[in-house]
Amino acid sequence: MTPERPATTAPEMHWSRWGVPEREAPLPEAAHALVDAFLGTRDTPAVAEEAVALSVPLAGALLDGLRELVGAEHVHVDPATRLRRTRGKSTPDLLRLRAGDGTDSPDAVVRPGSHDEVAAVLAWAAEHRVAVVPFGGGTSVVGGLQARREGYAGVVSLDLLRLDRLLAVDDVSMTATLEPGLRGPQAEALLAAHGLTLGHFPQSFEHATIGGFAATRSSGQASSGYGRFDALVLGLRVATPVGELVLDRGPATAAGPDLRQVLLGSEGALGVITSVTVRVRPVPDTRLHERWRFGSFAEGTAALRALAQSGTTPTVLRLSDETETAVNLATPDQVGGESAGGCLVVVGHEGTLAAVAARRTACAAVLAEAGGTLLGEDHAWERGRYDGPYLRDALLDVGVLVETLETVTWWSRLHEVYDAVRAALTGSLGEAALVLCHVSHVYETGASLYFTVASARGDDPLARWQEAKRAASDAMLAHGGSITHHHAVGRDHRPWLEQEVGPVGVRMLRALKAELDPAGVLNPGILVP
Amino acid sequence: MTPERPATTAPEMHWSRWGVPEREAPLPEAAHALVDAFLGTRDTPAVAEEAVALSVPLAGALLDGLRELVGAEHVHVDPATRLRRTRGKSTPDLLRLRAGDGTDSPDAVVRPGSHDEVAAVLAWAAEHRVAVVPFGGGTSVVGGLQARREGYAGVVSLDLLRLDRLLAVDDVSMTATLEPGLRGPQAEALLAAHGLTLGHFPQSFEHATIGGFAATRSSGQASSGYGRFDALVLGLRVATPVGELVLDRGPATAAGPDLRQVLLGSEGALGVITSVTVRVRPVPDTRLHERWRFGSFAEGTAALRALAQSGTTPTVLRLSDETETAVNLATPDQVGGESAGGCLVVVGHEGTLAAVAARRTACAAVLAEAGGTLLGEDHAWERGRYDGPYLRDALLDVGVLVETLETVTWWSRLHEVYDAVRAALTGSLGEAALVLCHVSHVYETGASLYFTVASARGDDPLARWQEAKRAASDAMLAHGGSITHHHAVGRDHRPWLEQEVGPVGVRMLRALKAELDPAGVLNPGILVP
Repeated sequence: MTPERPATTAPEMHWSRWGVPEREAPLPEAAHALVDAFLGTRDTPAVAEEAVALSVPLAGALLDGLRELVGAEHVHVDPATRLRRTRGKSTPDLLRLRAGDGTDSPDAVVRPGSHDEVAAVLAWAAEHRVAVVPFGGGTSVVGGLQARREGYAGVVSLDLLRLDRLLAVDDVSMTATLEPGLRGPQAEALLAAHGLTLGHFPQSFEHATIGGFAATRSSGQASSGYGRFDALVLGLRVATPVGELVLDRGPATAAGPDLRQVLLGSEGALGVITSVTVRVRPVPDTRLHERWRFGSFAEGTAALRALAQSGTTPTVLRLSDETETAVNLATPDQVGGESAGGCLVVVGHEGTLAAVAARRTACAAVLAEAGGTLLGEDHAWERGRYDGPYLRDALLDVGVLVETLETVTWWSRLHEVYDAVRAALTGSLGEAALVLCHVSHVYETGASLYFTVASARGDDPLARWQEAKRAASDAMLAHGGSITHHHAVGRDHRPWLEQEVGPVGVRMLRALKAELDPAGVLNPGILVP
Repeated sequence: MTPERPATTAPEMHWSRWGVPEREAPLPEAAHALVDAFLGTRDTPAVAEEAVALSVPLAGALLDGLRELVGAEHVHVDPATRLRRTRGKSTPDLLRLRAGDGTDSPDAVVRPGSHDEVAAVLAWAAEHRVAVVPFGGGTSVVGGLQARREGYAGVVSLDLLRLDRLLAVDDVSMTATLEPGLRGPQAEALLAAHGLTLGHFPQSFEHATIGGFAATRSSGQASSGYGRFDALVLGLRVATPVGELVLDRGPATAAGPDLRQVLLGSEGALGVITSVTVRVRPVPDTRLHERWRFGSFAEGTAALRALAQSGTTPTVLRLSDETETAVNLATPDQVGGESAGGCLVVVGHEGTLAAVAARRTACAAVLAEAGGTLLGEDHAWERGRYDGPYLRDALLDVGVLVETLETVTWWSRLHEVYDAVRAALTGSLGEAALVLCHVSHVYETGASLYFTVASARGDDPLARWQEAKRAASDAMLAHGGSITHHHAVGRDHRPWLEQEVGPVGVRMLRALKAELDPAGVLNPGILVP
């Protein structure tokens, strides 16, 4: 087939906030009153865009060289373009930008138009010792875009925007080959024209890219049904400073180590993914979300475990703990006729009408047996599924410190990790801090825990959060959890990676890095300890 | 829990044949007549065991040093023990031994009793430049035990027999931690005492080990239902010459590259796996195997694809092509009331009675819709599922060259690869060669092809087979297949690995090897090109 391009242009995100202006909203009045009562509020607006201090733009021979590689129109040094590729969208990232600190900005933004141009930029960067930061949607929340600057002649953001084609559809094998710069909605629209879906819907879906999903081992809200992104990827093409890597020999082989699983999660530190072959599914003709209630988080996790181990998993499965359930019900549009207390579960099914009916019956039997009560159909969760980050901006505007973190562990240690992380967070931020948690990804052997934390801002919110994050991360590792279930390592989790994979694991990563990126120009300071 | 050891000792295999003497049988008379008519037969017995030429046994300071590490009683230099760890069980391996060539024998066999002793042997080997060949069940069919001898002070077989404990069961998370030396039946017996099963039943099941399954990315006959072994592994402990590697942080993480997937398939070339944490399932209370018939291999593969893409896969799924179907029906115990011609499918379901009933109904609907005819319950396949290699020995005894090979590719290329491999085999071995094929592992996006080849022996059967194998392997790679779906790389597939993963992929493997095994003593000549 002829490669296909998206019909719509991807919107650029706000420089100091998540998402697009049309979707911004101040904190609802009721929520504002609630937050004010618990944590206190005050106006903490961002500085003006013009007031943000950026790095010195690329100039001279380096800039000329880059322009020659991809064409002058695809190299940008203006402040607006560079600012919008400065760090990612974690709360620390936003706090720094809101305070006017844009010193981690790239010195230039380059937009190659092909695999070969990506390769040429990498060769140029290696030759001139320029750090290269691959850029997809800019949605990192782990400092994945904050490369080390010291020791480099410059830092360039390698924006993959122009690599935005659907290259191939194989409707016999049910695979599609996508370029890395495609945003989630663009990829879905291109696939939908073929009657297909990828089924990958993380909260960052509207802005994140195919390449980013692969490079960070993203998980989506429907991963219980469709699988994590690393399970969807069957083939990869990667540009590295030492040459091209193509892995495309079939769904599974026994031909040695699975090198796809080395590039998945490589966060731009080992190479730049220039195409991804993924498993696709028919667009579901039926979607059904229901709400269940359990008496406690312990009852709820037992029910989710039973479901995960029953062999029948729904497409979407999400359990809020008591606090998150209470807070969600406290927002005006979600209060229903439901009895207060307990824990809310959202169960979603997608597929053919018959498949949804069969899976719904099977899941409902397990959930009822585990003590759950069906509350009815859910619309609120699906409607608001991508809105969390907008709410965060509204809270940051009124002086509330709010952030999320997540982990994964075995079922047998889930409550130990849950308790330890909560204790670490309130130990660091004070008992007044609000800690919400949900389980959103289940496996037969374990599950993720996703925490949302809100606390008073204090005098130095950045330092305050960094201390809390450190305590929570230490707790995760001390109790058998991973430093991250689906947010990647970046710069922020790097100090814990040696605890996660051990010193020999770190040596393996360093050896791979040295082999594929001998000049050390690929996203330096990210991932590899 | 206290670690548990198996109640039974693992039987040692015959030095020049598969399996144990009790199960040996001459070719049935009807089969003998058939083979004689098509290919011709003649007696081609093996030489006497005493006539096999072995390497020079380890002696002197090296032997003393090894004895000090693990105890003299755990170091063996007698010919019988060394001969039984000489190469694996491919037809070329058997042909060489039957002809009296045991020159690839290890110079000593060492049996460490713990992770620490394994680590000590590796350190000793690195210091003295002794090649170490990790040994599990000795079932390799790709030359995985035939290490390079040149440049080494000796070659030692690291027999993992004594690492045979079930270390832990977590019946909340449904995981078990097993040592690598456990044979398939031993592991299943230990787990069965806890009401659990691993569900991994490759044809080598009776002799192969947990460590071998992991190190070679084994797939089993029930992998459609339970998953490939690399999908069952959640945690690993590995001894390397540079230290211990422990990966155990949960079912799935986003903490960088998945290093488990580097050690899975590492074939003893990067480290020695000393424990494996695997997903387990309840012992099924129901098992049902049925036979279906399709008009042709093309109809059959279309049906299997429909099943794999329907979201409802049986536990066992196996489709024989026209030739394999005809040959199977030609053996006396399998002729039934079934109409001749077409292609046979075996469909197996395991689980609770209700789950089996539900899956059976769902699968039957897909198979019937795809044009299949249900023939009835199957008993023959399950009864004979581990017998193939015994039949091979009986054929080798009467001068028939017989061997298997396998690949995997996308559904859209399956028939192209099928035709190309068959053409390569008959092109090399002549039109009289019998080429059977079955599909035994299906994925949503592709499937495996497993070929059994029988031909006249010729004057130099080894060279004759090597030429055919080379032609078939070239055909696999030229048409988009992998060099192996579930037999690993070893020494035999190594020449094709660069085509499979490309020069950059090879650089990654070499860099990992150099980092983890700087002295190059781990299974040299295996896997890494």
